[in-house]
Amino acid sequence: MLTTTDPAADPTRLPAGVAVDAVLPRPAAPAGFTADDVLAAHRGGKLSVSLRAPLLDRRDLSMLYTPGVAGVSSLIAAEPSAARDYTWASRVVAVVSDGTAVLGLGDIGPKASLPVMEGKSALMKAFAGLDSVPIVLSTTDPDEIVAAVTAIAPSFGAINLEDISAPRCFEVEQRLVDALDIPVMHDDQHGTAVVVLAALMNAASVISRVMVDLRVVIAGAGAAGIACAKILLAAGIRDLIVVDSKGVLSVGRDGMHPVKQEMAERSNPRGVVGGLADALAGADVFIGVSGGSVDPALVSTMGDQPIVFALANPTPEIDPGAAIAHGAAVVATGRSDFANQINNVLAFPGIFLGALDCGAKRITEGMKVAASGAICAAVPGRAVADRIVPDPFTPGLARMVADAVIAAARAEGVAP
Amino acid sequence: MLTTTDPAADPTRLPAGVAVDAVLPRPAAPAGFTADDVLAAHRGGKLSVSLRAPLLDRRDLSMLYTPGVAGVSSLIAAEPSAARDYTWASRVVAVVSDGTAVLGLGDIGPKASLPVMEGKSALMKAFAGLDSVPIVLSTTDPDEIVAAVTAIAPSFGAINLEDISAPRCFEVEQRLVDALDIPVMHDDQHGTAVVVLAALMNAASVISRVMVDLRVVIAGAGAAGIACAKILLAAGIRDLIVVDSKGVLSVGRDGMHPVKQEMAERSNPRGVVGGLADALAGADVFIGVSGGSVDPALVSTMGDQPIVFALANPTPEIDPGAAIAHGAAVVATGRSDFANQINNVLAFPGIFLGALDCGAKRITEGMKVAASGAICAAVPGRAVADRIVPDPFTPGLARMVADAVIAAARAEGVAP
Repeated sequence: MLTTTDPAADPTRLPAGVAVDAVLPRPAAPAGFTADDVLAAHRGGKLSVSLRAPLLDRRDLSMLYTPGVAGVSSLIAAEPSAARDYTWASRVVAVVSDGTAVLGLGDIGPKASLPVMEGKSALMKAFAGLDSVPIVLSTTDPDEIVAAVTAIAPSFGAINLEDISAPRCFEVEQRLVDALDIPVMHDDQHGTAVVVLAALMNAASVISRVMVDLRVVIAGAGAAGIACAKILLAAGIRDLIVVDSKGVLSVGRDGMHPVKQEMAERSNPRGVVGGLADALAGADVFIGVSGGSVDPALVSTMGDQPIVFALANPTPEIDPGAAIAHGAAVVATGRSDFANQINNVLAFPGIFLGALDCGAKRITEGMKVAASGAICAAVPGRAVADRIVPDPFTPGLARMVADAVIAAARAEGVAP
Repeated sequence: MLTTTDPAADPTRLPAGVAVDAVLPRPAAPAGFTADDVLAAHRGGKLSVSLRAPLLDRRDLSMLYTPGVAGVSSLIAAEPSAARDYTWASRVVAVVSDGTAVLGLGDIGPKASLPVMEGKSALMKAFAGLDSVPIVLSTTDPDEIVAAVTAIAPSFGAINLEDISAPRCFEVEQRLVDALDIPVMHDDQHGTAVVVLAALMNAASVISRVMVDLRVVIAGAGAAGIACAKILLAAGIRDLIVVDSKGVLSVGRDGMHPVKQEMAERSNPRGVVGGLADALAGADVFIGVSGGSVDPALVSTMGDQPIVFALANPTPEIDPGAAIAHGAAVVATGRSDFANQINNVLAFPGIFLGALDCGAKRITEGMKVAASGAICAAVPGRAVADRIVPDPFTPGLARMVADAVIAAARAEGVAP
């Protein structure tokens, strides 16, 4: 990796109106809890199942179970579309993981991943009112994952794949999208990508640039990196370079996974070769989804008013303060204790709510871009450097995202 | 099938104190609802998922999801037994069906079976406070069912197999019991069997007989018939004959499924051959789980004070009134509008509650017999001919069953 001289950079690179401390750690999201608090909050698990109708006497029993339920089953047997109205499946999301890429913890197995999946189901409920069931798998074999999820699919209205390691996640998702007639989305890819695009829309506005003209470098070609690249291309970004641990994805490079090969063909229009420093020279946007560490001095080599999204958790690729010191105009991270948290919870509840509400058969790139637009628009007032994404607790956010998703689904003909 | 002469039988066969109308249709369980009422009760499905802790602000979000949840996942990764305390899996029952043997409707497929599985989950909650998730499968292949359930098993504390047709149900259950270290029970087999045994304990008391001395004939060698035979053998019944559509299961008979072959070897100690009439001559107990129709005159050929459990739904194998007219001392059916409903809901909520509470690795025959004892004992006062099973809404019934199951599990060493 190249290192620039004079890493302190030119203070004139700080854009007018952006104070260094605006993007430094701040007390807006204090932790305020101990390890014991966390354990207490998780004791017994975070979910329960409730009845939507009373079951208090023999009449209820006869209506909700035999003999009454036979009439409902007969109706659905005769008219399958009635399942949408008379079962819970059409509004339930399965959160499915094999526990191989959990948070920053890696391959910890299904049982240890379950608290995360329960948490994801909890967020579905809290942010979008969606019922959701965590399903953790005893297998990491793509064939077996696809078979198991296909087998249980009639129980659910949508599948949220979660924390499945790359590159298996690409194959598993694609095969399930092809096999099932319900929405399937790997959130580590697309949830992140949707929020990144939303944040970039506002970041472009903050520096008074047209987003599609920005030169973007993505560090990381795993689940999130590839998905970010795809959505930015779908949103019109033309000059996009993806860099992995071995350097720039370029057409002539040997030995790449087919997913990277395809991305090399779709990106890097100037034919840049080399490493991250080569890619970043003159670039407008750095998006880190690699989990590695990047020399903050490289920010100095970027174009005017660099945008830095350093999304690795818990340690951003570039420290936000150092990025500012080296001239960054807008900085975002994945952490709740810095300004501009790129948090999937801004996206996935509304995306699944919209997809289920309209009966979409799948989730298209257009629906994701529409979700980004709604998230971008949910920032109150004009976006400023330390507020390029909305607060996750913005009232009605999931509904706004859902409505945008529904409109896109109908426009693309994937929903009635 | 043989038909006896003089089907009207001898009225002196009506035992003292048992009035014919005691077991005839009565208004104790009025339907009292219309088809529209049923559809309204099922609209949107019968279940929802709730959060057990509030998720209202950033602090909650940080505790229940990242970064807080990482501590819980790390704990479980280091100490797998912590999953029992900090996930919901240890108290969640999956209700799994392939939709091949649903109520009286047969093979109606997964989507049409889902209202029944949701209903089962609703009963788990209403009667035992257990969380439960319906899982309906897009496959009916035993290998694929076993693979899928094995794959999702880490998500759950127990598996209730439901409405899977015989003889596949025997193989699927046995393979899952062998593969998994959590309780697996096919309720159509064992729930029915547990309640039949409970009812027979009280029925023996009603006619002042020692239960294990009774001669029992089971008509039907499907899921419920085989399981009833097994539990009655486990409970000490010695003279037991199972009859299928081709006649008595006997050792010399050719072409039997291995499950029937095994039962032939374990039952029929007097070596009876022939049909149902041959088996019933002089028998004390008829248990119908065949779905067929049996000439009520055969009751006249049984021993003194015959016990008739005609459990086919919706049409009992022998009409209760006709059974009484032909001398039956005690009659039970599967219907809620007759006295003595043999209803699985008396058993499965407490069995799963007990198995989960004590961390049992499996559900043994002894645990099932213990459940029967608790159900038998829950009949208020002394059992009489029209009250050999408790009301399903008996307060504390599931807890009583669970406690008996836990004691048996510990006695048998399948729980800590």
